[in-house]
Parts: sequence; structure tokens; C-alpha cells
Amino acid sequence: MGTYVMKFGGTSVATPERIQNVAKRVLQEVEVGNKVVVVVSAMGKTTDHLVEMANHVSTHPSKREMDVLLSTGEQVTTALLTMALHQLDVPAQSFTGWQAGMMTDDVASNARIEQIDCEKITTCLNEGKVAVVAGFQGIDHEGNITTLGRGGSDTTAVAIAAAIQAERCDIYTDVDGVYTSDPRFVPNARKLAELSYDEMLELAHLGAGVLHPRSVELAKNYQMPMSVRSSYEQVEGTVLKEEVQMEKDLVVRGVAFEGEIVRLTVYFSEAYMGSLANIFTTLAKHHINVDIIVQSIIPNASPTVSFSVKKEQLEETLNVLKEYKNTLGYDYIDHELELAKVSIVGSGMASNPGVAATMFDCLFRLGIPVKMVSTSEIKVSVVVPQEEMFKAANALHEQFELSKAAVAIEN
Amino acid sequence: MGTYVMKFGGTSVATPERIQNVAKRVLQEVEVGNKVVVVVSAMGKTTDHLVEMANHVSTHPSKREMDVLLSTGEQVTTALLTMALHQLDVPAQSFTGWQAGMMTDDVASNARIEQIDCEKITTCLNEGKVAVVAGFQGIDHEGNITTLGRGGSDTTAVAIAAAIQAERCDIYTDVDGVYTSDPRFVPNARKLAELSYDEMLELAHLGAGVLHPRSVELAKNYQMPMSVRSSYEQVEGTVLKEEVQMEKDLVVRGVAFEGEIVRLTVYFSEAYMGSLANIFTTLAKHHINVDIIVQSIIPNASPTVSFSVKKEQLEETLNVLKEYKNTLGYDYIDHELELAKVSIVGSGMASNPGVAATMFDCLFRLGIPVKMVSTSEIKVSVVVPQEEMFKAANALHEQFELSKAAVAIEN
Repeated sequence: MGTYVMKFGGTSVATPERIQNVAKRVLQEVEVGNKVVVVVSAMGKTTDHLVEMANHVSTHPSKREMDVLLSTGEQVTTALLTMALHQLDVPAQSFTGWQAGMMTDDVASNARIEQIDCEKITTCLNEGKVAVVAGFQGIDHEGNITTLGRGGSDTTAVAIAAAIQAERCDIYTDVDGVYTSDPRFVPNARKLAELSYDEMLELAHLGAGVLHPRSVELAKNYQMPMSVRSSYEQVEGTVLKEEVQMEKDLVVRGVAFEGEIVRLTVYFSEAYMGSLANIFTTLAKHHINVDIIVQSIIPNASPTVSFSVKKEQLEETLNVLKEYKNTLGYDYIDHELELAKVSIVGSGMASNPGVAATMFDCLFRLGIPVKMVSTSEIKVSVVVPQEEMFKAANALHEQFELSKAAVAIEN
Repeated sequence: MGTYVMKFGGTSVATPERIQNVAKRVLQEVEVGNKVVVVVSAMGKTTDHLVEMANHVSTHPSKREMDVLLSTGEQVTTALLTMALHQLDVPAQSFTGWQAGMMTDDVASNARIEQIDCEKITTCLNEGKVAVVAGFQGIDHEGNITTLGRGGSDTTAVAIAAAIQAERCDIYTDVDGVYTSDPRFVPNARKLAELSYDEMLELAHLGAGVLHPRSVELAKNYQMPMSVRSSYEQVEGTVLKEEVQMEKDLVVRGVAFEGEIVRLTVYFSEAYMGSLANIFTTLAKHHINVDIIVQSIIPNASPTVSFSVKKEQLEETLNVLKEYKNTLGYDYIDHELELAKVSIVGSGMASNPGVAATMFDCLFRLGIPVKMVSTSEIKVSVVVPQEEMFKAANALHEQFELSKAAVAIEN
């Protein structure tokens, strides 16, 4: 007996039938005497449909109103799941973000949770009821509805788990765990039994797409045990925790990849070198997520700085740079489309300096050009042509023998 | 220049295109310097779709959760209309029921507005913005989302108009005013230029369907001038106010009708006569709306009481009566389906005792049996077989010369 947070994503609640299945899954936890908070996303394509209507009435929908619009999606799911639980004689009550006491900052469409006043949820649990909470949403201090941005429901789930001091936060999704790479494109990928928060963070940031990075950061901050598991099958998923039993020599744990990357290069005349840093301050102020940055200062040549952004932010990035051209003092910009990022991740990498070299050698042998490189303690990322993305990912998966890893679970 | 409340119903906002048209209509009021609050319903079939999903996951959806579910419909419309207004460079902000300070009692699915804390709406108007408010919804004192029941958006509009002391509340709908009868079924029906609150109340209660009776009651209480007009055409609608310029001899102002009526008859043994009134107390406690009541106590015969309810409440009515059979002490019940109510309404009726007789005579000549009768100061209602409803309505419309009424406006 304990207190658990269960989170179900959009595909897991896409139809009334699936919502009924989720209710049955929740019933199992209730039957063994657990207190349960369920966090849900909007049903399947609901969000897409709402966005489509917004784009129909407006060329630039206000972010505040977009949040008012999109937050209805999760609210619908909470009501339907609560009804489905009642149908199974499970006492339950729904909560919108504001009813759940989810206080955020005032950054519309990309708000951060500041505080959770979880008194109402706690009361609900103590009354023996399941609390069904709308993910992805909150309110700011002015009472405006806010949303947490992409994958925000994962963050809601972990934040509530931390606030109510739950034993565990389980993310139920349409995959049954975290794999050494995306099994849809890397056929030899294998499921990992466990993973450290840091490794998951790198994988999440690198486009593995299973979990939202902010949720993993939050879990790490609060040392909240978290798992990723299947909504459909009763199989063990992948557990995230601080320290993972590492196999000797197992330096690389996964290969992540992500397409639709754009490289921008900004060319400066020498006189303006000092203002290089201003670019990233300016872009950050406009909520543009810059990923890899490469700066090149060659004596007697003009300095340049290259960086990557997601393709969906290219237009806004160019607009911002043009607007501030005088302040930033650059000469001109160019950009390259159709790129992808491929990364290897593993906590053991820090003490194995040869890993990056092995990666580059592998790609060189396949004739795959490396456009940019970025490294951290536990990952190496390269930017390559998008058409080479799957080939590179599969080759690196083989190179580091991930399909044979001893800690991997048989499918 | 003044402060107006404009309310647009579900068909007026059924598609993104129609929402854009509503935005244009609102712009006209803004352009002449008016402060505007817009109250909106859910888009077209949204509510039906949500109810369908609820019925899929639950045989008896909880009323609390139904309110959580349905209230999303209006919220979607507020966001989209606000975006459409922004697109026309009209400053605007959306409000859910709770954001608009709409405090209700805690009767889920059929809540009554207790108080409106309209500070946020007033601030919004004073900042030169249009306030776009979700109709039909509020919150109770525990912070639960409530809905106002059928036609609740009209009530929201009038309540806000009263709270902010607006000059007028205009209900924009898919008909262009209030007619002497429903023009879809009574071809000679004519639009009325004005109508008293009381006449409208009788018509609204009697199934004219244009306005929700509670909204008219509220308008009467606060003496709020109210109009019913077309969302699509720029034509004068029907104005509701306290005193209407009455034409001499114009005793009947309209003919209303409503199908799907059921008559129930409860048979008592003589010993229990005293408990007749208990039936209606018990039914009222279960929120069953009893309409016409006819009690018959004939010496030396068993007393009976007959009453009518809407067909949709028949099952619940029978359940309640069966549950309390011992307390109520009746012998048995029967009921008759396929009935309709046809009514004539007019403020001048009170001083014209011959009106009811003329009505009965007209129906008798057509061979239409009258099953029940109910009268008030300003209306006479009869219950007839449903198959005779349109025939009766048209005949009474002719009988009282409503198509020739001097105050009627030419279409």
C-alpha cells in the first residue's frame, strides 16, 4: 500500500474505449489498497483539432487564448475517466489544473510550475477517492490559464508526485519502456531495465521522445522514482533512479536521433567580436531554443558563430536576428536545412576518452559527413545530413554493441 | 456609446467561419465606441458529441463530472472568438465562468447564479477590451465547476448585464425575433416588435424555445432591456420590456406549443387523501419539473391527481414515485404518452374571460380532444394528442387573428 501517481498520455486515452481500459488499470492499483492520482493528457488528436480551428480564425493566435483553448482537451479526459471509474464503482473526482492548485509563472504556452497547493488532492485521496488531474495546465498569479508546453503532462505528474510525497510516478505510454534506440528505426534496439536520471535527461533532450526532459529534471531534483511502461501490456517498463547498476565496459547506453534540424551561421566583421554572446541572450529572450553552438575565431579571418535550432523555430529565429541586426552588429547570416542530430549517451563515457573518436571513425568509414559536434560528460552529438540519420543511428548502435548489452531485457 | 452585452448561441458559433462573422458583428459595436461583453455558447454539436462520449463510458454519468465535461464547450468558443477579434485588431480577452466571477449554488447540471464578482470583467472593459465570457457555467463555493442547465447562456448574459449595469442585453440567435408562433410550423406567424417580460416568460415556459425562461425572469427582476435578434441579418429584432404599447382588443399575443409531453395519473384510496401534496414535494426534491396539475376529488369515488412532465423525465418520475410508494400511499399509477401542449398567451387575457371559451370551441370544432387544461392570468394551455399539435396551433393562430395583428412587423 502506498501513494502512486499514474500518468496516461494522449494515445492511451484516444477513444472512450481506451479510457475504459485506463480505468480498469487504475482499478488494479486501487484494489490492492493504493492511493492513486491519475494525470491525463488530451484525447489523441484533440489538440491538433483545436490548433487547426485556432489557425482558421487567426494568423497569429494569442498565446493566452491558445492556452485557454488547449487546456479544454485535458479537462475533457479527466471528466470521462472519472465517469469510467465511477462505472467500475471506484470513487473518483476530476481536477482541472487550477482546481489541483497548479500555480505557474505567467509565460503563456510554456509556463513553469512554481508551486502546487495540493490540499484538495490530498483531501480527495484521504476520502478514499482517486484524484484525476488534468495534465499540461495550471494558472498564473493573475488567474490566467497557462499550459506547460510540449510534454507538459509528464511534468505535471512528477510535480504532483513530489508535492504529495508519492512513492513512485509511473508514466504509461504507447511504448513499453526506454530502449537503447528508437526500435521503429533501429531494429536491434533493446529495452533497458533501468537508467539514471542524467542518462534519461540526455536521451530526452536528444529527441528520444519518450519523456519530457523537464519531467526528468524534476524527478531528479526530488529524487522521485519514475518509470516508463506500457498502457496496453502488463510488462515491466524502465525504471529511472539516481544510481544504476552499471555493467563494466558499458560506456554507451543509448543512441538518440532527431531530424528537422537547421544550422545557422552568423558572420561578423572583426570589430564586433565582443557581441557574440549577445546573440544567445537575445534569442533566449524570444524563447528560441538554441541547441549546439560552435564558435570559430581564426586569426586574421572574420569570426563566425554557428548554432542549431529546430526547423519549426527557423522563421522566428531569422526574424529576431534581423530585427536586432544593428545591436548585434553582424554582417550576414546563412543557414543549412535538412540536417539531423545523432547522439550517443552513457554515464560511463566521462572516463572513456576514446568514445568520441570511435564514433567519428564509425561515421567516417560510412562516408557520413559531420557538420557540427557537441559533447557533454555523458553524451556526444553530431549533426549529419538528414538522409543519413537512420544509417548513422543503426551503425552506432552496432558499433557500441548495444543490442548485446548485458543489462538489456529480452523483448 | 454605452455598455452592451451580446449573446451568441450555439448555431451562431457552430464553425470557425461563423465565429469570424460574430467577430465582425462585435467589431461594429466597438467601432461606434461601445463597451462590449460577449457571452457565447458551445459550438454547434459540441455538447452532443461530449454527451455521447460520456454515455459511452458510463451508464449514469455523475452530474459533477458532466459539468466539468460540458463546460469545456463554451471555453473553446471564448478562446476562438477572442482570437478572431484579435485578428480584426479588436483588443479582447476570454473568461471562463470562474474567471468571470460567476458564483452559483452547488446543484450540479442545474445550478443557479448566486452572485457575480464582475471586477475582472469591469477592469477588462475599462482597459478598452472586449470581454468574451463562457456562458452556461460557473463555480460553486467549493470551487467545483457547475453548469446552469438548458439555455443557461441566456441567463449568463442577462446576469452579467445586470451586474455591470449594462444598457441592454441582446440575444443573437438563428431566428430574427419572437413570433406570434413558431414560423416553421405556423406559416402565418409574424414577428412581434415588442413584448412584455411576462408574455415572453409564458411563451418561453411554453416551449417557444427562443429564450430561456430564467433569463427572462432575471431581466424582469433587474428591469434589463433585452432583445432577441438575428446573428446573420441586420434587422430589428423583438424588444422585451416591462410595459408594451398594447393595441386595443389585442388579447392574444402568441401561440406556443411543445411536444413530448406525458400525462401521469396517480390513483389513491380515500384514506390517503391528505397526502396528495406530498407527491409534488417529493418530485420537486428530485428536480422533476411538473407542469400542469389536475386534481379530481369526486364524492364516493377514489381521488386521483394527474400531472404532466416532459417525456425525458418520465423514467425518473416513475422511479421516484415507486421508491416512495409507501410514504405517498397511492394505489397505482398510469401514464399516457404522445401528448403535446398548446397555449395561447397575452397580457390582455386577464380582462377577457371569453378567451378560454373561444379556444375550447375552436378545438372542439376541429375534433381535437383536450386532455388537460391549465390557465394563468395571461395564458391558457391545453394538452392534446401530439399528432394534432400543429393543426391546433395553426387553427388558434387564425382564430385569434394573430397574422393580422397591428403591432406585428412585416417580415
